[in-house]
Amino acid sequence: MRIGLLGFGTVGSAFAEVLAACGNEDVRITHVFNRGVERKRLHGHAKFVVDGAVWTERVEDVLEALDVDVIVELMGGLDPADGWLRAALGSGKHVVTANKQLIAYRGAELFALAASKGVQLLYGAAVAGGVPVIPGVAQGLSGDQITRISGILNGTCNFILSSMEGGADYREALTRAQMAGYAEANPSADVDGFDARAKLCILSRLALHAEINPDEVPAQTISNVSAVDFAYARELNCTIRQVSRAQLTPKGSGLLGDAVSASVGPMLVPKSSPIAWSRGTQNMVVTSGRFGGDVVFSGHGAGGHPTAVAVMSDVRAIAENSVQVRLPAKKMAVVGDVIAPYYLRFVVDDKPGIVAAIASELAKVGANIDSILQHRGFGTERLPFVVTTEPCLSSKLGEAIAEMAKFDFMLEPPLCLQILVVDDPETD
Amino acid sequence: MRIGLLGFGTVGSAFAEVLAACGNEDVRITHVFNRGVERKRLHGHAKFVVDGAVWTERVEDVLEALDVDVIVELMGGLDPADGWLRAALGSGKHVVTANKQLIAYRGAELFALAASKGVQLLYGAAVAGGVPVIPGVAQGLSGDQITRISGILNGTCNFILSSMEGGADYREALTRAQMAGYAEANPSADVDGFDARAKLCILSRLALHAEINPDEVPAQTISNVSAVDFAYARELNCTIRQVSRAQLTPKGSGLLGDAVSASVGPMLVPKSSPIAWSRGTQNMVVTSGRFGGDVVFSGHGAGGHPTAVAVMSDVRAIAENSVQVRLPAKKMAVVGDVIAPYYLRFVVDDKPGIVAAIASELAKVGANIDSILQHRGFGTERLPFVVTTEPCLSSKLGEAIAEMAKFDFMLEPPLCLQILVVDDPETD
Repeated sequence: MRIGLLGFGTVGSAFAEVLAACGNEDVRITHVFNRGVERKRLHGHAKFVVDGAVWTERVEDVLEALDVDVIVELMGGLDPADGWLRAALGSGKHVVTANKQLIAYRGAELFALAASKGVQLLYGAAVAGGVPVIPGVAQGLSGDQITRISGILNGTCNFILSSMEGGADYREALTRAQMAGYAEANPSADVDGFDARAKLCILSRLALHAEINPDEVPAQTISNVSAVDFAYARELNCTIRQVSRAQLTPKGSGLLGDAVSASVGPMLVPKSSPIAWSRGTQNMVVTSGRFGGDVVFSGHGAGGHPTAVAVMSDVRAIAENSVQVRLPAKKMAVVGDVIAPYYLRFVVDDKPGIVAAIASELAKVGANIDSILQHRGFGTERLPFVVTTEPCLSSKLGEAIAEMAKFDFMLEPPLCLQILVVDDPETD
Repeated sequence: MRIGLLGFGTVGSAFAEVLAACGNEDVRITHVFNRGVERKRLHGHAKFVVDGAVWTERVEDVLEALDVDVIVELMGGLDPADGWLRAALGSGKHVVTANKQLIAYRGAELFALAASKGVQLLYGAAVAGGVPVIPGVAQGLSGDQITRISGILNGTCNFILSSMEGGADYREALTRAQMAGYAEANPSADVDGFDARAKLCILSRLALHAEINPDEVPAQTISNVSAVDFAYARELNCTIRQVSRAQLTPKGSGLLGDAVSASVGPMLVPKSSPIAWSRGTQNMVVTSGRFGGDVVFSGHGAGGHPTAVAVMSDVRAIAENSVQVRLPAKKMAVVGDVIAPYYLRFVVDDKPGIVAAIASELAKVGANIDSILQHRGFGTERLPFVVTTEPCLSSKLGEAIAEMAKFDFMLEPPLCLQILVVDDPETD
């Protein structure tokens, strides 16, 4: 089996190493496409690519090569990757990709194209890197009816938030993530939730059988979370994580599958929840099934080698003529609204009547206050304090927050975080 | 696809329900074999089996039926199940089984038979019930080189030990497990480690590519663990779990794959380890890969519905003509000996010179003492105290313990538990 590799960066070079280590001479990289290919040939891992391989800066040299059986695409992004993969599938080549954006936004069409050409399109590396949640769900949980997925799908955010849990402030934690190579110079895709959102939509298609549009999933940035929120979270026996959730919403008739309630953003997570266990760049996915209950997958979600393992596993599946279970999916609308308890953190210029004013806005939308927390040790000029609510409708709460933001004592926009509710762990 | 079901007990009846719920009319149970079949037909779940199905007490009626495509075997045990499955595979029927003993002891022959007949033999339910560790490893981690598996593979032991962690003594916890239906009247297969051992051997074949004989894997009973051990474990920031471990041992040359170091038994587990997270009847498997690092799978390891999900997923894979990755395995010897730190608990009739006598025996075999713990609050006539060692060779330590057991002040045989060492969680 001859592989045309698109991209010889961190994951591509690690894949070459992992492939060489597996010692199967019948599977080899015969073509490598990359910009600045002469520099890439000097990479320490270039030695893992067989002698005589074609190194090229013209992608056509790989896509059009008649002696390439599988295209491994590790460049990322919607375009031009989309056109490349369509060309590859169209000419009867199998494709293995780690491209989460492409699979999230255009997966349905690409799968249809692959099926029509009788070739495989595998993407195990697109979600949670080295954690085999895609094959685990496709092969091992196809017998269940999964109604909810929750997860830590972005290692960068988990690194930043778990650093903040350890005492760092957001800027420090972000800088540390950038120095360690976990975060980009422009961290928006990670911290604002767009990366996790794409992965959530891929999991939704696979596990919930629901094809949803990533653009419809509300994504909340983690960049407004501050050290004081971790202090308050601790008081509530919680920590804070970027959580991605998607759940089938039973509507009216009680039938499953009418819509998907989905969101990505920082949440308060009880320390007793598996979601709170992830440290550093670890990823975690929890599936909740009607019959099998909760299943947890966790491990290294990013990094060259773990991602390369997922790519290699897909390559091996193709080499062995393995065929995956096909899980049908249908288009569904996204409901951003949820009923949940919320954490509201205000920074105010302290004066009498603030709690009354806030309580009054909450009462107007029917949100009951569960607790009011206020730590000592802050000045009265920038006083952060916290209100938690009983479960309420997020859109209604949003209306109240919009009103509160107008108060003259409010020094910054209120921060609103959903509080994750943990089901009883022992239900079987 | 027509299914011949062997066994309409807890899992079999749950499978009928899960199959009916999936709403695929093309896959149905047409034959059911069970003892006392007239009573089984009155089972509430018999309604999930299609009208007109054959209910029989003669297994041949199912095995020899020309209109059965897949045999689902949920009876367990080596014989007569072995002969039944050989007959089924021999006549060109696919087989799905949850039979861990059969797959552990005779899997290699059965896989060869299935391959020679061009049919599938799937066993996802044989390890960790509803936790998709078998497809996850086979499909999702085939690209890695897994060098170690650790896990909580027996829900009954985990229920008992986590109840003891909550304050129960062993007898109470066992009785509670029996009342809840988690433990048999004769609990030996669970508490003495034979059940977990079979599962460990199945995982060893799949993940380590090492075919090992279950009888060669040392199994230590949990029945000697007492409440006082949990008190001491807590002091060491640990809990106690029945842990199953198998690890490729690099020998001499540094080559992997010469032998497998394997054991099943109660161990001290640091609370920071994922292994300590499992509560109640939950199962957990941690694989450690050369490239991908640690991957954790966890969920409901037992019970009718979770196990039925695994069976159903395998049935679905066959119905969809899915083909698994074939992972080769070679026979390997088991090494029971490990180098690890140990926890030794003694119950003695207190008198001067005891610590010196014990220390002297440990010194003879080169085992260094790491700590000596002795709680107040026990009488001097039955004084439990604890010695922990630095890492030492288990066989050498065993020699010392055999000598110590002869001391006249020793009121019961010393309890020796391995202390699990947790690698740095953040290694990528």
